Amino acid sequence: MILTVTLNTALDITYRIPSLRAGSSHRVSEVTERPGGKGVNVARVLAALGHEVTVTGFSGGTTGRVLRDRLTEVPHLTDALVPVSGTTRRTVAVVDARSGDTTQLNEPGPAVSHAEWFAFQEVYEDLLGSASAVALCGSLPPGVPVGAYAGLIRTARAAGVPALLDTSGAALRRGVAGRPDILKPNADELAELTGSHEPLRATQDARRRGAGTVVASLGPQGLLAVTPDARWHATPPARLTGNPTGAGDSAVAGILSALVEHLPWPDRLSRAVALSAATVLSPVAGEFDRTAYEELLPGTTVTREATAA
Amino acid sequence: MILTVTLNTALDITYRIPSLRAGSSHRVSEVTERPGGKGVNVARVLAALGHEVTVTGFSGGTTGRVLRDRLTEVPHLTDALVPVSGTTRRTVAVVDARSGDTTQLNEPGPAVSHAEWFAFQEVYEDLLGSASAVALCGSLPPGVPVGAYAGLIRTARAAGVPALLDTSGAALRRGVAGRPDILKPNADELAELTGSHEPLRATQDARRRGAGTVVASLGPQGLLAVTPDARWHATPPARLTGNPTGAGDSAVAGILSALVEHLPWPDRLSRAVALSAATVLSPVAGEFDRTAYEELLPGTTVTREATAA
Repeated sequence: MILTVTLNTALDITYRIPSLRAGSSHRVSEVTERPGGKGVNVARVLAALGHEVTVTGFSGGTTGRVLRDRLTEVPHLTDALVPVSGTTRRTVAVVDARSGDTTQLNEPGPAVSHAEWFAFQEVYEDLLGSASAVALCGSLPPGVPVGAYAGLIRTARAAGVPALLDTSGAALRRGVAGRPDILKPNADELAELTGSHEPLRATQDARRRGAGTVVASLGPQGLLAVTPDARWHATPPARLTGNPTGAGDSAVAGILSALVEHLPWPDRLSRAVALSAATVLSPVAGEFDRTAYEELLPGTTVTREATAA
Repeated sequence: MILTVTLNTALDITYRIPSLRAGSSHRVSEVTERPGGKGVNVARVLAALGHEVTVTGFSGGTTGRVLRDRLTEVPHLTDALVPVSGTTRRTVAVVDARSGDTTQLNEPGPAVSHAEWFAFQEVYEDLLGSASAVALCGSLPPGVPVGAYAGLIRTARAAGVPALLDTSGAALRRGVAGRPDILKPNADELAELTGSHEPLRATQDARRRGAGTVVASLGPQGLLAVTPDARWHATPPARLTGNPTGAGDSAVAGILSALVEHLPWPDRLSRAVALSAATVLSPVAGEFDRTAYEELLPGTTVTREATAA
């Protein structure tokens, strides 16, 4: 199975309203609620592709119960979340029907105790015994040490399990030093990590900081990957408009699913690009449109770029 | 005891953020959560004043469970909420620390079935047997007939229990025809009901539509009351700045607490005005500051106005 780690799981709530006006009162016409956090999103895409996937991380309180109840409904997905005494956070996405803009409000997440953090690490090590790959995704809740991901990557390496890291800020800066096999930053995260806004330079810099391969997601420009051996640029067949929420998580699922099927980098990248694009096109934020995915996949372009000096 | 009815209870969530920018992502620095819906707020103020109060209406789902758990912590308050298969709504108040503005997002509430509505009416009739007054407050959830309040007022009259109605829109228009003893609209509700933006004219019109006494809350201008015998204007000692959330619910609690203590209208109104003002001054939205209340009470002014023609 593929293991995904979401230390700061969330109950993602989406409110649709005709138009958001700051300082006013709004009746919400449509409410949707689903399990969230980046690793949970990655797991849902992997499960939809038919992969057996196990979700770990923390959950607690009433929102945590709702989240776990909803996860039981997903085929191919096993819930191995570790209970915490705090309450799983909510995120609220307010979608303005007129402008199409989404305003996001993210709660900080529960405080995790030392004992809970140690309990998680034991569960994690056990799960690695049957994992073919692990994705470490998203922000750290209060109480989890900022160097957490570096330690989890080292544990994965000791177990012979390839690890992908997708996070931001200090958790990314400290995590990359643990030498993940794959790092998947977006353009902003890459610039924050390296200080460079030039994607190729920043991607190469991120490799020097410890990542085996860096796959940078550049929005509509697709993916730029620098592996130990080569440099690749993967692009979707056409410029797409839609909701980019979850496109990065779908790219992670594409990379990992192809990795565990022993496919080479060009196939991993075309799958990642097609899944991302099919997520942007989907009417439901963070879901991917399967028909669009299957139609887009043959049209994605992956080019090997000349390696300079 | 005093009975308060909240057909559309809510779990009120407050998010504090540095500054709300539409279309952006925000980390919420502070989350608070409390039982809500206008009748629940009225009950909390009555309980804080030392009155025995019973809360009825509907609750359901995980948010309903959280709401009921929190109500058990309130002294003098008895929970007689009727279970529904749907889920109690959330309201989200986003407080912008820079501007002080509050942006409100209100879920619609659970769909109430015929059977649930009938079950509620039986519970309500039983509770009236030991009630000295009843407050009917707030919006109607989907499935409850728009004329609901008129029927509940008639049941109260048959039981000899004075009824106060505080609602808006169609529920107000239809409810006033049930001839509540007291109607407590704010200026907007009054204008919507009567078509007149002139407070005295509108208040008199609302009486003609069926209300025994109309107490109109005019924000910083205090309260205007038209009873069968007289006209009163009650004002706080000074113009106050703060958060007006819940000020109307505190006014309702002030009126009812003085009513069951057999105090005359001037005392009911001064108590309502002082409680409202102490709620505006409180740092926590919807709570009242007890010290401020006790200080403000002697300074409130109630004048009897000449009755024209």
